[in-house]
Amino acid sequence: VTSRYELFYWPGIQGRGEFVRLALEDAGAAYVDVARVRGIAAMMRVMNGVGGVPPFAPPFLRTGRLLIAQRANILLYLAPHLDLIGKSEAARLAAHQLELTITDLLAEVHDTHHPIASSLYYEDQRREAARRAKLFVAERIPKYLGYFEGVLGNAAREGGLLGRFSYVDLSLFQVVRGLSYAFPTAMRRIARKISRVHALHDRVQARPRLRAYLASDRRIPFNEDGIFRRYPELDG
Amino acid sequence: VTSRYELFYWPGIQGRGEFVRLALEDAGAAYVDVARVRGIAAMMRVMNGVGGVPPFAPPFLRTGRLLIAQRANILLYLAPHLDLIGKSEAARLAAHQLELTITDLLAEVHDTHHPIASSLYYEDQRREAARRAKLFVAERIPKYLGYFEGVLGNAAREGGLLGRFSYVDLSLFQVVRGLSYAFPTAMRRIARKISRVHALHDRVQARPRLRAYLASDRRIPFNEDGIFRRYPELDG
Repeated sequence: VTSRYELFYWPGIQGRGEFVRLALEDAGAAYVDVARVRGIAAMMRVMNGVGGVPPFAPPFLRTGRLLIAQRANILLYLAPHLDLIGKSEAARLAAHQLELTITDLLAEVHDTHHPIASSLYYEDQRREAARRAKLFVAERIPKYLGYFEGVLGNAAREGGLLGRFSYVDLSLFQVVRGLSYAFPTAMRRIARKISRVHALHDRVQARPRLRAYLASDRRIPFNEDGIFRRYPELDG
Repeated sequence: VTSRYELFYWPGIQGRGEFVRLALEDAGAAYVDVARVRGIAAMMRVMNGVGGVPPFAPPFLRTGRLLIAQRANILLYLAPHLDLIGKSEAARLAAHQLELTITDLLAEVHDTHHPIASSLYYEDQRREAARRAKLFVAERIPKYLGYFEGVLGNAAREGGLLGRFSYVDLSLFQVVRGLSYAFPTAMRRIARKISRVHALHDRVQARPRLRAYLASDRRIPFNEDGIFRRYPELDG
């Protein structure tokens, strides 16, 4: 059987690729996680062999004749095929808007441990990281998660950020999981203010396919090479 | 006459809203730049009055019953209506992929002057900004613009990044303009390595409607409140 989807991402981290994995896994889609099966060299050969508009960086997805890069763009494409979004244009735009807000958040999370440059080790920017993380924890986590709490509070959104379950709920689940890994103290401190976000996290976690995935060895544990890193000195 | 499009963005800067303005202006679309006409308070009333999924931040666009936020999401929606993208799914995905790569770049540009926090003044993070900007100029500008140079070099792309002209060309024009404002020395130094990017910039600049816009007072000058800021000490 040939899988319809090939996902290309760094094999040792959850990173940005994990958001695509969650969508594929929750939908029960057949896919190959190429670099984990065939190695990074195989991924780079594909990436460097693309004519036209190649990816700037992983993750990217190959399906049929399409090769699609950028995390949120991949989800934009996949969601209708995986029945993870409603059919209306308004729903799709709203979902993508939320997903791009998560993109912004991820860049900020990354920069808590790399505020100067991705090309430098964390150890070479620890002083700046401490300064940035302190304000990220105090200002940005409450602002972002408070925003999502507000979206969930608008009307009856028991089913998810868009009223019914959608792929953005999977992404918010992953954000909560990642922030709770990286900043456990800070997340405990604001837990009561974002009860709807946590309730959504728990509902997502209970979805049968997702629960099976999270318990499998396909789920790479969080570690200090990914976006969400547990450096206790950065956790408020 | 009622304009079909209302753009909401901070009135004193080009910022992220400028990418939407360029698309509307190049297409000759009728639009209202709401905060410039009716003030910031009018913008905030709309933003805070949205049920469902409100914007996390400006820019946002109102058209009919849709209210769309996130710069790249607005362009994704607008481009087909303004005839700024081809009809194929592959072209739209490729354009959005490039646009999201520009989103990533913009976050990095912003953080050259705000590496610690948006809530602090530049003056309170100058030391970190100098360190970050040095590596941004040395590593990231060449990486990003070299990437776009490569896309333009794939096949015959005289017409633009996607072969024919599209909204992404307007966005890359704005990136070149902004980087040249903020980092003139660094941009002069790499000019010869990105000749296709500069040629595209020149072709875009010569488009009649865009030229008229750039010469009008609707084009806000670059300044030190926007994303692209000229702080000589940050320019390699």
